[in-house]
Amino acid sequence: MNDSEDTNGLKLSKPTGDFEGHALPGSFLLILGLWWSSLSILKFVCKQKKETFYLGSKALIHRAKFLEGIVLVGMVITGISGLQIFADSSEIQFLRILRLHHITIYIFFGLLGVANILCATISSLPASLIKLMLSNAFFVQTFIFYNHTHGRDTVDIFLHKLLGLAAFLAGLVSFMEVLTKNNAILELLRSSLIILQGSWLWQLGFILYNPTGGPAWDLKDRNNNMLLSIYFCWHYAFTFIIIGVNYAVITWLVKWRLRKLCLAEVTLLKNAEREQESGDEM
Amino acid sequence: MNDSEDTNGLKLSKPTGDFEGHALPGSFLLILGLWWSSLSILKFVCKQKKETFYLGSKALIHRAKFLEGIVLVGMVITGISGLQIFADSSEIQFLRILRLHHITIYIFFGLLGVANILCATISSLPASLIKLMLSNAFFVQTFIFYNHTHGRDTVDIFLHKLLGLAAFLAGLVSFMEVLTKNNAILELLRSSLIILQGSWLWQLGFILYNPTGGPAWDLKDRNNNMLLSIYFCWHYAFTFIIIGVNYAVITWLVKWRLRKLCLAEVTLLKNAEREQESGDEM
Amino acid sequence: MNDSEDTNGLKLSKPTGDFEGHALPGSFLLILGLWWSSLSILKFVCKQKKETFYLGSKALIHRAKFLEGIVLVGMVITGISGLQIFADSSEIQFLRILRLHHITIYIFFGLLGVANILCATISSLPASLIKLMLSNAFFVQTFIFYNHTHGRDTVDIFLHKLLGLAAFLAGLVSFMEVLTKNNAILELLRSSLIILQGSWLWQLGFILYNPTGGPAWDLKDRNNNMLLSIYFCWHYAFTFIIIGVNYAVITWLVKWRLRKLCLAEVTLLKNAEREQESGDEM
Amino acid sequence: MNDSEDTNGLKLSKPTGDFEGHALPGSFLLILGLWWSSLSILKFVCKQKKETFYLGSKALIHRAKFLEGIVLVGMVITGISGLQIFADSSEIQFLRILRLHHITIYIFFGLLGVANILCATISSLPASLIKLMLSNAFFVQTFIFYNHTHGRDTVDIFLHKLLGLAAFLAGLVSFMEVLTKNNAILELLRSSLIILQGSWLWQLGFILYNPTGGPAWDLKDRNNNMLLSIYFCWHYAFTFIIIGVNYAVITWLVKWRLRKLCLAEVTLLKNAEREQESGDEM
Repeated sequence: MNDSEDTNGLKLSKPTGDFEGHALPGSFLLILGLWWSSLSILKFVCKQKKETFYLGSKALIHRAKFLEGIVLVGMVITGISGLQIFADSSEIQFLRILRLHHITIYIFFGLLGVANILCATISSLPASLIKLMLSNAFFVQTFIFYNHTHGRDTVDIFLHKLLGLAAFLAGLVSFMEVLTKNNAILELLRSSLIILQGSWLWQLGFILYNPTGGPAWDLKDRNNNMLLSIYFCWHYAFTFIIIGVNYAVITWLVKWRLRKLCLAEVTLLKNAEREQESGDEM
Repeated sequence: MNDSEDTNGLKLSKPTGDFEGHALPGSFLLILGLWWSSLSILKFVCKQKKETFYLGSKALIHRAKFLEGIVLVGMVITGISGLQIFADSSEIQFLRILRLHHITIYIFFGLLGVANILCATISSLPASLIKLMLSNAFFVQTFIFYNHTHGRDTVDIFLHKLLGLAAFLAGLVSFMEVLTKNNAILELLRSSLIILQGSWLWQLGFILYNPTGGPAWDLKDRNNNMLLSIYFCWHYAFTFIIIGVNYAVITWLVKWRLRKLCLAEVTLLKNAEREQESGDEM
Repeated sequence: MNDSEDTNGLKLSKPTGDFEGHALPGSFLLILGLWWSSLSILKFVCKQKKETFYLGSKALIHRAKFLEGIVLVGMVITGISGLQIFADSSEIQFLRILRLHHITIYIFFGLLGVANILCATISSLPASLIKLMLSNAFFVQTFIFYNHTHGRDTVDIFLHKLLGLAAFLAGLVSFMEVLTKNNAILELLRSSLIILQGSWLWQLGFILYNPTGGPAWDLKDRNNNMLLSIYFCWHYAFTFIIIGVNYAVITWLVKWRLRKLCLAEVTLLKNAEREQESGDEM
Repeated sequence: MNDSEDTNGLKLSKPTGDFEGHALPGSFLLILGLWWSSLSILKFVCKQKKETFYLGSKALIHRAKFLEGIVLVGMVITGISGLQIFADSSEIQFLRILRLHHITIYIFFGLLGVANILCATISSLPASLIKLMLSNAFFVQTFIFYNHTHGRDTVDIFLHKLLGLAAFLAGLVSFMEVLTKNNAILELLRSSLIILQGSWLWQLGFILYNPTGGPAWDLKDRNNNMLLSIYFCWHYAFTFIIIGVNYAVITWLVKWRLRKLCLAEVTLLKNAEREQESGDEM
């Protein structure tokens, strides 16, 4: 796949795609990663504090799943619309295939959103279905990226390979979550890999289609690959710092702010239980 | 394996094999995938409803295993017979090896059928033996496909590689089932990968040996690989929709139709238990 | 590793090694595979029959472990001695390295024997240590084979690759056994992969250094690779039949012959327990 | 990545790096491997002896975690300082990238140290976080090594590949430890792989930059790769012997020396418990 001569005799003069097409899904993934890490940390912190508190947060999380599904479907529709609207009607077949690659990835994230909505409305569906669809979405993303960079420059290929690596690892961790339930460490690892993908998509956009108009990278120089492998590791280290800060903030919030809110909710739950009990007694 | 010059100096003028040779196993796999997904969904739905209901369906499933084995052995005999009857007696050694490849795959599915029959008749055999033979059959299939496409065109190789990928993943999931028991999600994932193989075999038949006589694909154009990777993902997304519809239909059937049938069976079971109890009392 | 020009300018006129050097370890592996499969089946059958019966067999198995260690160390010493005695004193460095490869593999099986003896004598050592050393031995074997076939013909390389594949899978299954205890299916799978290695070593010997002096294989013809991949699968199917027959024989033996022997042993055990109990009462 | 022509037209006259740059991290890894294996053996031996004894050692181990973190951070600062101080200010960009590779690896071990300190001070953090950071450190190391040897000689590449293999396996075992708790066999396996890395870094230093000034290895001769694969296995066998000796020494120490020390500690613990109980009574 590495030789760049045979894309129908067409030698691409510049990298295909644009900055916005990579920054948009990058932002989506950053938001999702931050949201899921916050949710995992909240669940973990609440679990340690009190059982009743945990129950309260669990009901909250269930409601959150529904919203999550709606937001995901919204993101997917935005992404696909963006790709279709800005598509050049006179584009060659090769570019059309690349656009279809992106749309296919979006479709599988759309399926994840649908699974979220279904699991939140139909209680009989197993909860691990969401994790399965998530792992599927990432594996499909890896598969697409593997077949995406045919006939491009070495640095361009390497950037996409690293993105594919992060997607594959995120898929692997999601699949482990299908088999093991409620492992906080795995959930945080997955979130960190999703944040990594998001920030790497931004990095990729800045390197390939620099919007600031700065000096362009030499996309044929293999030394740049060696340098970018360092960048990738630093992005990864950075996600740990983000999650660490997130953990500190949420622990502090749970301690000082949510206490009152949750106590009220627990009282409501207790009242509900009391009513139910008195109902049972009758 | 990618260079196409050294098949004994013979440059193959057209892809080896025919449409029927791929549509037949494709249909077999589609039937098996649909059957296994229905069985898994039925077991999952019944489990959630009632314990006694579940026991009734369990006895049914045990009897089904025996029939499954018979059907599998029948499929294998049909497949191998088809390959032998339509074999050209004057074929060159290269084509004979390709036919042996197909027969070897059939043999391992035959072993799966035998394991099914043995497990249904000899109660002391571990139930996970069937899952092991299933995973073996898929791994052997992957291994054969990996050594199958020597000296062919790039699109032909890519089509078989994707089939091998689906077979490998199905084998992997089956092997996980050997280690973890009664995981509904894994069973459905395996079924979806088997349906994917079946529908991809049909796709492969239509691309390589188009029976409708439509325009032929350029088997040397790598852009087609990029396009086919999208097709493959769509086939996969399609299997989810099939399984989703299957789930809805079976849930509805269990709710409205099977209720009477199963109640009758449960009554029978209870009667049997009562007799046994009265027998114990005596 | 595939180009055959640069072994110090030396073009090897015939495959290095001899028939006996492959038949001897092949026989060792066949014996080990049959022995371990028998042991696993015996354990599995006894477990199903009776608990006391199982305890009797367990003591037997513990004693067997010690003997197993002695036999393994004996095999290793035989194998290494054979390599050293028949070594040509005037051999070139390249052949010396190949001999060292074989000796290294033997050494790791020797370590397995030592682990067997240690675990049988020192009760505080974890039993899974033996499984770890077994998986180590197979992984080291895979690693050595991967670096073993530099500068040889394609069929020679392919034959060793398949051997490495079987060794890798056996190592993988052994490692799974380190993590999960007493899984009969995994034990039988491992045994079948070991028998596969043994029978494939014989096959390899017959193809590369045919002792009967029959027609030689063309080691440069890739079509032979395609044919040999079928042979490999058939060897694998054959191991299942061997293990199936073994299972039938051992079940029959346990039912009709060992009954008397074990009843006597159980009586002894019960007597011992009674003595212990009367000792506790005092 | 194997062709050596395109490092900006610069043909490196000698291997980049120096003996000290490899011996220092090698020594660090040897110390860590020995320390962790001792800790695992101590925990395993104490667990078997007495429950109270085990509790005493557990408190000791908790305190050790904190020290471990401090030492790790110290090692990382030493390593990075060494790289920065001895860096040639006029170095070309290629050498600067190689130095950054080493620094990135150190940074992830620094993160492991920080995780150690955090887990020892904040009790609410999950203990498996340390194992996750450890596996991360090894996986990042593998990733870096994979992109580290661009444009070097075959033996140089092979030596680093083997190091990467050991790092990958150590990462894999660490990750398994995240999922399964307190598996002594896995802990010892990980320690042995870390000792292997340490001793292999020394070996690598001696082969590439022989400080004794002995005869240099021919870094372009592939036969050396075949020989070095044997060396690697022998290093691995050697780590087993080291861990075996370590096990014997620690068992002996626990039996004869620590008995008195621990009895005293247990008495202290009992006194503390008694005080707590009398406090509860009041």
